[in-house]
Amino acid sequence: MEQLNAYLEANKERFLNELIDLLKIPSVSADENFSNDVLRAAEVVKQRLLEAGVDQAEVCPTKGYPVVYAEKIIDAALPTVLVYGHYDVQPADPYELWDSPPFEPVVKNGDLYARGSCDDKGQMYMHVKAFEMMMKNNALPCNVKFMIEGEEEVGSVNLETYAIENKDRLKADVVLISDTSMIANDAPSITTGLRGLTYLEVEVTGPNRDLHSGVYGGAVANPINILCDMISSLHDADRRVTIPGFYEAVEEVSKEERDQMARAPFNLDEYQRHLEIKEVMGEKGYTTLERTSIRPTLDVNGIWGGYIGKGAKTVLPSKAYAKISMRLVPNQKSEAILHLFTKHFNAIATPSVTVKVRPHHGGEAAVTPTDSIAYKAASKAMEATFGKTPIPLRTGGSIPIVTMFEKVLGVKSVLLGFGLDSDAIHSPNEKFGLFNYYKGIETIPYFYRYFTEMSKG
Amino acid sequence: MEQLNAYLEANKERFLNELIDLLKIPSVSADENFSNDVLRAAEVVKQRLLEAGVDQAEVCPTKGYPVVYAEKIIDAALPTVLVYGHYDVQPADPYELWDSPPFEPVVKNGDLYARGSCDDKGQMYMHVKAFEMMMKNNALPCNVKFMIEGEEEVGSVNLETYAIENKDRLKADVVLISDTSMIANDAPSITTGLRGLTYLEVEVTGPNRDLHSGVYGGAVANPINILCDMISSLHDADRRVTIPGFYEAVEEVSKEERDQMARAPFNLDEYQRHLEIKEVMGEKGYTTLERTSIRPTLDVNGIWGGYIGKGAKTVLPSKAYAKISMRLVPNQKSEAILHLFTKHFNAIATPSVTVKVRPHHGGEAAVTPTDSIAYKAASKAMEATFGKTPIPLRTGGSIPIVTMFEKVLGVKSVLLGFGLDSDAIHSPNEKFGLFNYYKGIETIPYFYRYFTEMSKG
Repeated sequence: MEQLNAYLEANKERFLNELIDLLKIPSVSADENFSNDVLRAAEVVKQRLLEAGVDQAEVCPTKGYPVVYAEKIIDAALPTVLVYGHYDVQPADPYELWDSPPFEPVVKNGDLYARGSCDDKGQMYMHVKAFEMMMKNNALPCNVKFMIEGEEEVGSVNLETYAIENKDRLKADVVLISDTSMIANDAPSITTGLRGLTYLEVEVTGPNRDLHSGVYGGAVANPINILCDMISSLHDADRRVTIPGFYEAVEEVSKEERDQMARAPFNLDEYQRHLEIKEVMGEKGYTTLERTSIRPTLDVNGIWGGYIGKGAKTVLPSKAYAKISMRLVPNQKSEAILHLFTKHFNAIATPSVTVKVRPHHGGEAAVTPTDSIAYKAASKAMEATFGKTPIPLRTGGSIPIVTMFEKVLGVKSVLLGFGLDSDAIHSPNEKFGLFNYYKGIETIPYFYRYFTEMSKG
Repeated sequence: MEQLNAYLEANKERFLNELIDLLKIPSVSADENFSNDVLRAAEVVKQRLLEAGVDQAEVCPTKGYPVVYAEKIIDAALPTVLVYGHYDVQPADPYELWDSPPFEPVVKNGDLYARGSCDDKGQMYMHVKAFEMMMKNNALPCNVKFMIEGEEEVGSVNLETYAIENKDRLKADVVLISDTSMIANDAPSITTGLRGLTYLEVEVTGPNRDLHSGVYGGAVANPINILCDMISSLHDADRRVTIPGFYEAVEEVSKEERDQMARAPFNLDEYQRHLEIKEVMGEKGYTTLERTSIRPTLDVNGIWGGYIGKGAKTVLPSKAYAKISMRLVPNQKSEAILHLFTKHFNAIATPSVTVKVRPHHGGEAAVTPTDSIAYKAASKAMEATFGKTPIPLRTGGSIPIVTMFEKVLGVKSVLLGFGLDSDAIHSPNEKFGLFNYYKGIETIPYFYRYFTEMSKG
């Protein structure tokens, strides 16, 4: 491994510059104005994989954005690691809140700032560079396959079809994913649970056209006021979601696991200070870490209606809209929750308005085992490079494809993430620490080595 | 008056084309991108007044958009009519809901479609053309002054200062305003009451930056959810406003006046069908006409926060905003209501967020007497041209300057409007009936005649 470390040291600057080039491509999958950029990012990833030493690489079309597939098969008898990542990024707006433009990466105080620097171009590219290191130093101990998609930020809508159609090609012993975070740079952790997601959009219609609020106000239901009433009623005073049946399938986590969670390093004062809030807020009876990991939630991700320009307009609008998402825990099914929401939202609408619920995307929650070879190999790899055993941790985000891989490919995933919660993914000023980028590249080859060794016997 | 009617018949086409030219100027006072257009509209109004025969006309600067002042003094011993109107218009968005572009006027089925066609360029220009008719036919019976402002749609913020500084110049016996509507083309009415207004903007801040809703959702207060809670709590189950003290100053209207209102032609089924709503909604215990005239209300005019672009973004935003207005009735003071709102909104904020309330503009409610010479002259004028006595009616909109004129100039106003509620002012596809435009031009000279005669004797 000394050889690999020397290679890493010698190539750090190039590894960084290659990532910067990739980050300059605004591959925003949610906005079709960027579609050429998303496609360009796929081509670049394919090219880089070829340069790193794969046998073959291909930009595989789907009904949406393509999947970049590549592989290096050294011996069919050896285990196979399937690396998953994504080359698309979240929308960058609000642009005005970025200290530097989101697609002009800059390094400041040891952090690389750009949209996608952490989620997921930076973490995905660690795997490309770790693979290059192993190849150039004759240190690849097993087979590798890469599946890098371009629709993760819009719900991986075509990945299941791709997986089904390429089941044989994707055959592997483990799916390795770096798209999560760890507790801190001196407190490594491995994600063992992810929440599921139901994301939808609601439209509330009152009168058939925008009205003058002076002439009609007070007599005609205002869809914004009604939407606020409806959204407000979705939580009770204990901040529990009021949708009938919402908690029905929720698995109560054992006291043991909750006790273990309570031992994870977490400082509430620091958390609040970091976000500049006086008080946290969430479901009664649960801690902050529990609220963001083992409990389902409902958040409005966007709301709009009426006049939102400068100045004042006395309008009683015809329509109001909201984007709403629910984070789900194991056993809650995304599709079932969508139906419960839709039924409830229609039920609580007053006769003075009409409502529409449009599903966006969803995904299932996942819990990964900690007694598998893959988890043990990942834990040992982090221990080797961080000098500490990583803490197994359930986290709040969703990577719906974890459940899908298990269902379609019959393979479990290991979530070996190197980001931090403070990396501001999905926010302005997203960053990724250079420490984390290089530590990831350093750690990944250990995983390959331990996983191969432990698989053999 | 036959001579005037003949002149009107002979000049109808030109009168219409001149109005169309004025409507082509997008004089949106709320949006500074249109500031040159607002200023251009002022110049055009001044030019048209000069052409119509005033002694002098002037574009008078204010701290905001100018007031166009003009006058024709024929004899200091005769009464003076002060015509008020405005040349600025509401924003035209959402543009995509217009059947034809808002600033490219078109006539369809006897209606002129354009932003400002009714509110207020069309109604204001009736006065310019009625004045021209009287001048060209030696039929002007009294003195006339014109005060046409450019900031009505943003709260007439500089008009009071202008009125105070020009008190002598503006001396008059009545203010004549056409900026309201009547019940129907075969049911003329005169507005005798207008609601006041408090318009403000609220900002709710949660965390100091946009967060990933998966990582923080459920633990950190989401300002959109909180804003919805707060807005929802502003009405109780009877749709009464919950702000403490809100109704304190409200004058209860007498049973007699309510009985009289109940006799005004109004068809609830038709009203609902026209707006395509299944049910009206408003304060318990009051009829639709009462809710929009003698009762105060609270409406959200705009709301925004989080991701409102295409697709999905799992953001827990830092901030959420709303524009909120309250329509006030006589005795409720705009400034006092602003204070009550601000105090209450801060009081109901949870400790997990901070709120800001920014006042936009306001104005006082007004009730005009029906036993004045001015009202009687207006009533007789409408009777002469419609063949029916107009119904006195309180309406829901606000023209805050009515109270200000009384306070500063000591002059009562008469609200001789020719629009219809269905003219969609402040909405897409605003229109003004050609019948109404010409009927206004025909009626105004009668008002001058009767007002002058009644003032003498």
